[in-house]
Amino acid sequence: MSILDSLKWRYAVKRMTGEKVAQEKVDVVVEAARHAATSIGLQPFSVIVIEDPELRKQIAPIAFNQPQITESSHLLVFAAWADMTEAQVDEFVQHVANERGIPVANLKGLKDMAWGAVSGKTPEHRYEWFVRQTYIAFGTAIAAAATERIDASPMEGFNGPALDAFLGLDKKGLRAVTLLALGHRDEANDMFANAKKVRRPREKFEVKL
Amino acid sequence: MSILDSLKWRYAVKRMTGEKVAQEKVDVVVEAARHAATSIGLQPFSVIVIEDPELRKQIAPIAFNQPQITESSHLLVFAAWADMTEAQVDEFVQHVANERGIPVANLKGLKDMAWGAVSGKTPEHRYEWFVRQTYIAFGTAIAAAATERIDASPMEGFNGPALDAFLGLDKKGLRAVTLLALGHRDEANDMFANAKKVRRPREKFEVKL
Repeated sequence: MSILDSLKWRYAVKRMTGEKVAQEKVDVVVEAARHAATSIGLQPFSVIVIEDPELRKQIAPIAFNQPQITESSHLLVFAAWADMTEAQVDEFVQHVANERGIPVANLKGLKDMAWGAVSGKTPEHRYEWFVRQTYIAFGTAIAAAATERIDASPMEGFNGPALDAFLGLDKKGLRAVTLLALGHRDEANDMFANAKKVRRPREKFEVKL
Repeated sequence: MSILDSLKWRYAVKRMTGEKVAQEKVDVVVEAARHAATSIGLQPFSVIVIEDPELRKQIAPIAFNQPQITESSHLLVFAAWADMTEAQVDEFVQHVANERGIPVANLKGLKDMAWGAVSGKTPEHRYEWFVRQTYIAFGTAIAAAATERIDASPMEGFNGPALDAFLGLDKKGLRAVTLLALGHRDEANDMFANAKKVRRPREKFEVKL
């Protein structure tokens, strides 16, 4: 099946059966996020996988009690880094040097570019740039889930600061920006399971100059 | 090939051969962006496809003369909507009604949710939300290009307002936020063509609570 078939198959599932998604499929989604395109290779975000049903039950009220929080089998939290220090950029550059088997001194250009991009922005713009990178991975993960025929519910509707505090993400320098619940669609109870997918027609979506 | 193989195959190609990408493959990328997940189904963004070599030559200086602007065969501009009016939300709701064959009066809940989400934000937050939606489609399009084995160069480095003015996007209520150049990698001249892909290890990327 092509990626386009997969994208047409998927929809934002609102009701799930609770049936468990195989760990190897969850891994594909997380690995897709990890391998997503990211500016300069910086990956200024992390993913948290929450399987514990009790923990998801406690998260539900922080996310307007959306049923897919507890009816999914895995809840992925996409968290942008609140900030990035020069030491973290150095760690990134050192990791590239190690992986490519080259001296870190040869990567001064990469260091200057990366730290320039990070430190040259206001804290607000830097964070928003990190969020945008998080969304590239989020979009990639959603597509990956579809190619694996895992149902997924992307969610922006939750109290970010409350979730950060509840999960202790704030103390780790992370800020939850989106959620992705993985599970299996409940066709009997999800009113959208058989609704036609609606998108703006191509001739309106693609704007001609 | 799995999506993960595709993501491992791709990299941010800096030098391209100029060889033309088949239109049907360009279409898969644009259609992937069009079918990407998007909050409430609103799709507050558009894509512009630029093939004309002369036009791309004129765009190059607006994007730091990155060679892939002219060495690609198609340049995709991902543009967020600068704003969204209630009339545009009504048009969206009407389109959903038409596509699903239901009276628009039955979609009052959708209208209220969509317009509430749009009008309930400050102009700055609304625009940034639109940008985030654009990035979901951007990430989806990058993944789609990889599954089709088309090389792609995602670019954030360009003068947005200058590009908007040059292409007349500002007059269409659009703001260019990212570019995606489609083409074929030039292995002889791209120093990154055979460099190992480096990502943060899984155990650091996936944060445990």
